[in-house]
Amino acid sequence: MNYARRHLTKYMRWDWKFLRVKMTLHNEERTRTISWENPRISARDANAISGLDYLKAIMDGNIAPPPIARLVGYRIVDVETGEAVFEIEPGEHLYNPFSTVHGGILSTLLDTTMTAAVLSTLPMGKSCSTLEMKVNFVRPVNDKIGLISCRSGIIHSGSRIATASGKIFDDQERLVAHGISTCIIF
Amino acid sequence: MNYARRHLTKYMRWDWKFLRVKMTLHNEERTRTISWENPRISARDANAISGLDYLKAIMDGNIAPPPIARLVGYRIVDVETGEAVFEIEPGEHLYNPFSTVHGGILSTLLDTTMTAAVLSTLPMGKSCSTLEMKVNFVRPVNDKIGLISCRSGIIHSGSRIATASGKIFDDQERLVAHGISTCIIF
Amino acid sequence: MNYARRHLTKYMRWDWKFLRVKMTLHNEERTRTISWENPRISARDANAISGLDYLKAIMDGNIAPPPIARLVGYRIVDVETGEAVFEIEPGEHLYNPFSTVHGGILSTLLDTTMTAAVLSTLPMGKSCSTLEMKVNFVRPVNDKIGLISCRSGIIHSGSRIATASGKIFDDQERLVAHGISTCIIF
Amino acid sequence: MNYARRHLTKYMRWDWKFLRVKMTLHNEERTRTISWENPRISARDANAISGLDYLKAIMDGNIAPPPIARLVGYRIVDVETGEAVFEIEPGEHLYNPFSTVHGGILSTLLDTTMTAAVLSTLPMGKSCSTLEMKVNFVRPVNDKIGLISCRSGIIHSGSRIATASGKIFDDQERLVAHGISTCIIF
Repeated sequence: MNYARRHLTKYMRWDWKFLRVKMTLHNEERTRTISWENPRISARDANAISGLDYLKAIMDGNIAPPPIARLVGYRIVDVETGEAVFEIEPGEHLYNPFSTVHGGILSTLLDTTMTAAVLSTLPMGKSCSTLEMKVNFVRPVNDKIGLISCRSGIIHSGSRIATASGKIFDDQERLVAHGISTCIIF
Repeated sequence: MNYARRHLTKYMRWDWKFLRVKMTLHNEERTRTISWENPRISARDANAISGLDYLKAIMDGNIAPPPIARLVGYRIVDVETGEAVFEIEPGEHLYNPFSTVHGGILSTLLDTTMTAAVLSTLPMGKSCSTLEMKVNFVRPVNDKIGLISCRSGIIHSGSRIATASGKIFDDQERLVAHGISTCIIF
Repeated sequence: MNYARRHLTKYMRWDWKFLRVKMTLHNEERTRTISWENPRISARDANAISGLDYLKAIMDGNIAPPPIARLVGYRIVDVETGEAVFEIEPGEHLYNPFSTVHGGILSTLLDTTMTAAVLSTLPMGKSCSTLEMKVNFVRPVNDKIGLISCRSGIIHSGSRIATASGKIFDDQERLVAHGISTCIIF
Repeated sequence: MNYARRHLTKYMRWDWKFLRVKMTLHNEERTRTISWENPRISARDANAISGLDYLKAIMDGNIAPPPIARLVGYRIVDVETGEAVFEIEPGEHLYNPFSTVHGGILSTLLDTTMTAAVLSTLPMGKSCSTLEMKVNFVRPVNDKIGLISCRSGIIHSGSRIATASGKIFDDQERLVAHGISTCIIF
């Protein structure tokens, strides 16, 4: 997370020392501070708002994104009925032991985007949950890539079960991972 | 991470204390600060250490865990040849918009634990990468559960391809999620 | 195709020559004749018999197996609550263009055996259907292998959704394929 | 079972009675006779023909289809580089105990069509094998549907690994099942 360091050195100068105390143990330590709001406040009340309106409200900044979005660093950039786009900056804080972005993070982005596609079709009173997900990883991702974006769409939408697919592309439109999910609607 | 940057430029220009003020705006904001070491230092050099020794070194604290482990908050608690156990505390920072731990985090834990099972069988000179993973979510997880743990094992181990399975249990030994992965060995 | 050949020699002795004529057209042609009973008669009436009793009745020969079992050549050899075993003789009639048993047939055997595991837990009045299935193929199968058998078990059993896993072994207990499925219960 | 019935009336007229004798045991028995050529003759010699030319030769009737195609009753109807279309008549011989076409048969059709998409991209000297496949079943199929067709395409094509997707539609263009597969190229 070079970004955090740069950022912190630049903007939080006098506070840096405090953080550094904590960080100096290994001399190469980086820090990332995230904050989020009480997720029980921003959680969707299925009886008050449709899925699409809820997602748009998050996109427009009127409802706080869930904590996981802050932690991992993804955000919704587009949503229509049955389709969604999320993006993420693939920083070092997401690295696995092989110094590439952990497949679980790509899975998180895919699950988020595919579930958003399903959620966007649900009226007030209806919610959904991912029963299962399958992800293929086709290209490693590291922090030299500016942004990766995930696009999803509904494959099949039934009354009880919906399936969706999603693809993650890097900033040169190369496919990075793709997934498919099965959601239960209730 | 444009969001954070905007956020920080706007609100954090001069200090930490201000942030706290900002958090009170919503009266419910929480903060999590994570730190990690340069992942290029702790990344496995496949030619220097076997997979099992590498994982044990992380478990014993002799090699830094990867950034993602710090970010998400998981840790390795046991590893033998072909088997691994990781655990995580399911905190609110991992919540999706439904106020349960995001399925992508369970996927991250499963991918980590299953890949560790494969990695633990690889001698010096060999490495592996997840080709694909499939996860079933069978029970929601929230922060009322103390710890969840993931146990994995090899299903099939070939010269080029290995498959592994993993299960996540909550603190009452109830199944939370299960997965399967296909790794390429090179 | 030992079965068909045996079958034909046994039941169609005087007809064999006719078939052979037909087969000599390509000089290498083989024939398999299968027969089955009206599947609407042997289909399970969920309101009349539990899943386990239905499967046992097929195993004991009191209810006709479904047409697909005759076509492909598999049979149930054991079933208990939450577990099932099926076997198949991997004949040439199941070959793909690579002269090995088609992965779809292994998938058929896995789906059958995993669904039987779920069905075996269902009381009268309940039925199930496979929502999705995932199969890994780990070893090719050809007709030099005497019999392959598939064993399945329930992973998770909920009120609406159940998951099961299955493994296919060859006659030397080597793993051939493994799968996982998600069933909806209704 | 129209095909088999037609086939039988056409070629085995005088034999039909004999078969019927055998079938009268249960008064409702049906018969299907399939024939195929030595699959070792029609198997692809990867060093002699490209994947696309091999598939086109089967489509044009110059190379015999594999036994499984005859058994199950599917045929290739179109193939281009990276794409394929197969179709099948969903007869009663394919029924599971629920009187619908067995999901394993839909899986067979999907695996066939997806593998064909990958094979169609391979030059002489290269072959492929399905590592794993995942299938979602979204609509039951029975013999009231005239024909179902499966269309596939490459998702990602690497030097060692390729992924493909496929969809099965009924004769009214309704989605019946969809799948995804991972192939190893060697």
